[in-house]
Amino acid sequence: MEHVRKQAEAAKKASYELGLLGTDQKNAILLAMADALEADSAAILAENQKDVDAAKAAGRTAALIDRLSLSESRIKGMADGLRQVASLDDPIGEGLETLKRPNGLEITKRRVPLGVGGIMYEARPNVTADAIGLTIKSGNAVVLRGGSEAFASNNAVVKSVVTAANQAGLPKGAIQLLQDTSREAATYMMTLNGLISVLIPRGGAGLIKSVLENATIPAIETGTGNCHVYIDDSADLNMGVEILFNGKTQRPAVCNAVESLLVAESVAADFLPMAYKKLSEKNVEFRGCAKTCAILKEAVPATEEDYYTEYLDYILSVKVVKDVFEAIDHINQYGTMHSETIITNDYNNSKRFMDRVDAAAVYTNASTRFTDGEMFGFGAEIGISTQKLHARGPMGLKELTTIKYVIEGTGQIR
Amino acid sequence: MEHVRKQAEAAKKASYELGLLGTDQKNAILLAMADALEADSAAILAENQKDVDAAKAAGRTAALIDRLSLSESRIKGMADGLRQVASLDDPIGEGLETLKRPNGLEITKRRVPLGVGGIMYEARPNVTADAIGLTIKSGNAVVLRGGSEAFASNNAVVKSVVTAANQAGLPKGAIQLLQDTSREAATYMMTLNGLISVLIPRGGAGLIKSVLENATIPAIETGTGNCHVYIDDSADLNMGVEILFNGKTQRPAVCNAVESLLVAESVAADFLPMAYKKLSEKNVEFRGCAKTCAILKEAVPATEEDYYTEYLDYILSVKVVKDVFEAIDHINQYGTMHSETIITNDYNNSKRFMDRVDAAAVYTNASTRFTDGEMFGFGAEIGISTQKLHARGPMGLKELTTIKYVIEGTGQIR
Repeated sequence: MEHVRKQAEAAKKASYELGLLGTDQKNAILLAMADALEADSAAILAENQKDVDAAKAAGRTAALIDRLSLSESRIKGMADGLRQVASLDDPIGEGLETLKRPNGLEITKRRVPLGVGGIMYEARPNVTADAIGLTIKSGNAVVLRGGSEAFASNNAVVKSVVTAANQAGLPKGAIQLLQDTSREAATYMMTLNGLISVLIPRGGAGLIKSVLENATIPAIETGTGNCHVYIDDSADLNMGVEILFNGKTQRPAVCNAVESLLVAESVAADFLPMAYKKLSEKNVEFRGCAKTCAILKEAVPATEEDYYTEYLDYILSVKVVKDVFEAIDHINQYGTMHSETIITNDYNNSKRFMDRVDAAAVYTNASTRFTDGEMFGFGAEIGISTQKLHARGPMGLKELTTIKYVIEGTGQIR
Repeated sequence: MEHVRKQAEAAKKASYELGLLGTDQKNAILLAMADALEADSAAILAENQKDVDAAKAAGRTAALIDRLSLSESRIKGMADGLRQVASLDDPIGEGLETLKRPNGLEITKRRVPLGVGGIMYEARPNVTADAIGLTIKSGNAVVLRGGSEAFASNNAVVKSVVTAANQAGLPKGAIQLLQDTSREAATYMMTLNGLISVLIPRGGAGLIKSVLENATIPAIETGTGNCHVYIDDSADLNMGVEILFNGKTQRPAVCNAVESLLVAESVAADFLPMAYKKLSEKNVEFRGCAKTCAILKEAVPATEEDYYTEYLDYILSVKVVKDVFEAIDHINQYGTMHSETIITNDYNNSKRFMDRVDAAAVYTNASTRFTDGEMFGFGAEIGISTQKLHARGPMGLKELTTIKYVIEGTGQIR
């Protein structure tokens, strides 16, 4: 695994100089990379076609092939993404606090890059450009480990942007795409403490689990979203149907999509048929508790496992609950601390839900689909953290930084 | 290991109510605990005596027995520590940012407790009270895993404070001392994802290493400090001697003590004899490179391993370097990203050192011994983080919190 370590060492070495670049220079690098992607689009598309052909030959799913496939417009999207990141405020150097201590020491809390970000993802070549943009803008070098199905595409993207970036002043070695796409190399990468500062997995539950189990580097748990809509006694039922429909069906495969519906028993008999009718437009399957099945003959019985499941599909688990307190307890037990919403007109129940539900984002009367860096106004995101340390919710540029205490003295001792 | 899980589950359950307590109530709980410790001091000292007797019978080191031993004044110190924490600002509920989005959504970033802190430490019963004070004040429940040598003492401390705290309104179960002090129980505790939100080890390198290797819960790497003093070409050599002496000898067993001296070659022949003379007052052994040994006949040759070593003892590794750049490279290779200081009168070299040394705290012309929550004005600390994620440097109350996005809508969908 010496070849994996060598790539991480090169990134680490480059990170010291990269961390000292000014905002203007980093932006010039990002814009050069964006132009290069567009200029090299024919070469990138040719390499991408090899990946797509191989995936088809291997009988991979249509969804995977869709995520894997690039086009002129997707490459333009990647380039525009880099330009947008260039337009965002630079988090580095932002003034935080300065303390003058009684002994005369001046302590400045300074925001600095993490060093080297390790980004692990699946067969989506556009993540390659996104991850490079965010890490470079925040002053970090990056080690990328993309899915093996996208290897030719990723190499083409990296070759294009690295050439342009180095000409624009990016320290050599700052962007590394792992050339070994084996599982062993990925697992080894998770243990490179001292070289990689943070590990950010972007992908499905299997990847996240592997990182939790194998990583010795600090990692950010991202993306798993077993999100709930709770319809309270006093809910506007029509609003509830719209928000449920939006959360479940607008884009079911993403982490902020709704997976589970909780309904207060006082409104269940009214709400469930309304909800089922609307969600039938998209053929959503309802898997419910005994009370749900008694009200809604189309529902099939849910198992305990259903309530823990992130379907990422047109399936919804449903449970009738006594009140907001049972809803809160249910969410805190079965949820993944991602995004949760209550539909209510009751001030106290809204407050109870927002105070007591333990999640990155808690909503009253809005869709969970808003938990997203762009929707929050951060401009871009590297992922959505469902853990509590370092970052929670959508992670933007600031979440790719750390702090450093810089202390000026005149000979002070203790 | 069901008994360990049960304790963590009880803490988790209590954490929801605890997180909602107001500052006044948390402070009343802290003050009640402080009074209880003083009132129960005879009982605590009696239990402590059992631990001390057992440690002596087992032939444990004098240093361990010193850390283990309580006295009236140490108990008073624990009580005063709780009172001090009560006097600190409450980090919970502090206003952060509010965004009003174009679609009308109101997004508030709210500071909230982490949930349950897992604190692992060695045979120092006073850490029990410190850790309880900081976690409760920040609205967190706590699972404590203290060293087995201090088990009777820790139980007496916990019994005293828990009784008083519950009477003052602390939710039952919020403070848990692991009753199984086996290594297996500790390792199991490190894997209780979903119950314990963060693991903070307070202790030696062995404990930290075990956490890095075994924990699946997010953990904070704390405490290892291979701290350097670099004497630059333009240094005030007398100031350098004073800062080196302070850093090396004032309290050699702590993490912010100096372990290694780097000297610019232009001043090595002048500085090394001065430094050796002063540090001889405390019989400090110098382990040096070839150039050091040529200048200082009392020095013994250093091995490569010496430069990586946190001695925590009256030993100093020494290396003559060409200039500030070699000093920076050496520190970034051998250091532990804790605290580093340059002694210089050169503006540019100070700036180079402060910008390029990758550590939680970088100093010019001051002792590394100041890296400490109290010295920084935070009032108290739960540990000193040497990692970059979540917290870096001294960790106070704010570092025991996370954030939560609270979003108020009126029916918004995407």
